[in-house]
Amino acid sequence: MKNYKLTIQYDGTRYKGWQTQTSTDLTIQGKLQDVLTQLASHPVELTGSGRTDAGVHALGQVANVRLEGIQTCEEIRDYLNRYLPEDIAVTVVEEVEERFHSRYHALSKTYLYRIHTGKIPDVFGRKYTYSYQTPLEVSRMRQAAGYLVGTHDFKAFCGNKKMKKSTVRTIYEIRIEETENELCIYYTGNGFLQNMVRIITGTLLEIGDGRREPEEILSILEGKNRETAGYTAPACGLTLCKVTYEKEH
Amino acid sequence: MKNYKLTIQYDGTRYKGWQTQTSTDLTIQGKLQDVLTQLASHPVELTGSGRTDAGVHALGQVANVRLEGIQTCEEIRDYLNRYLPEDIAVTVVEEVEERFHSRYHALSKTYLYRIHTGKIPDVFGRKYTYSYQTPLEVSRMRQAAGYLVGTHDFKAFCGNKKMKKSTVRTIYEIRIEETENELCIYYTGNGFLQNMVRIITGTLLEIGDGRREPEEILSILEGKNRETAGYTAPACGLTLCKVTYEKEH
Repeated sequence: MKNYKLTIQYDGTRYKGWQTQTSTDLTIQGKLQDVLTQLASHPVELTGSGRTDAGVHALGQVANVRLEGIQTCEEIRDYLNRYLPEDIAVTVVEEVEERFHSRYHALSKTYLYRIHTGKIPDVFGRKYTYSYQTPLEVSRMRQAAGYLVGTHDFKAFCGNKKMKKSTVRTIYEIRIEETENELCIYYTGNGFLQNMVRIITGTLLEIGDGRREPEEILSILEGKNRETAGYTAPACGLTLCKVTYEKEH
Repeated sequence: MKNYKLTIQYDGTRYKGWQTQTSTDLTIQGKLQDVLTQLASHPVELTGSGRTDAGVHALGQVANVRLEGIQTCEEIRDYLNRYLPEDIAVTVVEEVEERFHSRYHALSKTYLYRIHTGKIPDVFGRKYTYSYQTPLEVSRMRQAAGYLVGTHDFKAFCGNKKMKKSTVRTIYEIRIEETENELCIYYTGNGFLQNMVRIITGTLLEIGDGRREPEEILSILEGKNRETAGYTAPACGLTLCKVTYEKEH
């Protein structure tokens, strides 16, 4: 058996997310596993770098899977793309070390949240952006983002109230890019809790439109209470851009 | 009554085109007319610069409409965007001369046909591109395109066999841009017959992949017979980019 690393793109609009509890739901992992099983003719287990919520998209999700390895990486990729639905594609298949684990070995993840701020609806980007019509003061959002960068207990920004494991994470960078009609927020960190990027985005929006002060981030982090943070921004605006690993896998 | 020029964007995927024969069909013109009637509270007639086929998109379709003119152009635009479905947007509303007619006064139209040539399916562009996997020799397509530029009788490239009016048109430019995974063909002309851009694209693809010779364009034009030209490339790859008019309307 050989271990393969897959880089995956998907339009998450019609899916219940990467993986869900019940096996009958339409999930990206489920679709991939179906086609991999058909290719391998033995049961396969696909391990993702992490879950993405229902409706969230990916440009570079990563997963690994063990296969008998009678095909080349290119053949595996082409087979998957031939049988996957048109809203999921595998961009790269690489053979990796036996011990490689897409979740445990991930060093960082980068997410992009796209906010359409223009007055004219974005017809072609409508499924990948969140339209926000209240004017935003980006400098306030940047100030607030500064308080979030670093290692913190992000319990207040975790959507899972029953979370028993550590809620400490490190955000390496929050970069906000402004164009005429769009605000792009790039988040890079060593890992993100359930809904974390969407709750941070919702909070930054409430700061940007003046409903909250940038300094509130400090007391929200301190208080570790989900109720004190902002709302969960919609899934459609979020895309998992990339997952990085050490060079030698 | 004032005359207004509207610039319109749409994702044509779920529509039967700009306008169709039967009034019950889902059309872009129909959707716009519904919202305009609601705004104007008098019957309105929306005149488009030309029809687009079912499934064809637009970045800059133009239409004109006469309204009582009690609102500003911005108010009309915002009202339309508030009530139109999310796959149609009005980007600009301008007051124009009483005599302005979006079809009669159009000087040129530019269409873009997007061909996805990459091996990896284009998840996010899938609704706006046509995937073509046979390798294409672009120099052959450019040579063939050269024969089409100019004033010709394009009867062989007309999808309407019952066409009784003149089938003479002038193509000002066919520009083919090549990127790693995509071929973009831009067509600019004084007007295009029904399906003309899609039939020309189908013919250029058959030339690009070696099934036909570039010089065949000359005999196809000469023969004026639809059967001799190539197939009609799918609607999803086509977008009406812009319609130009004299400055002073």
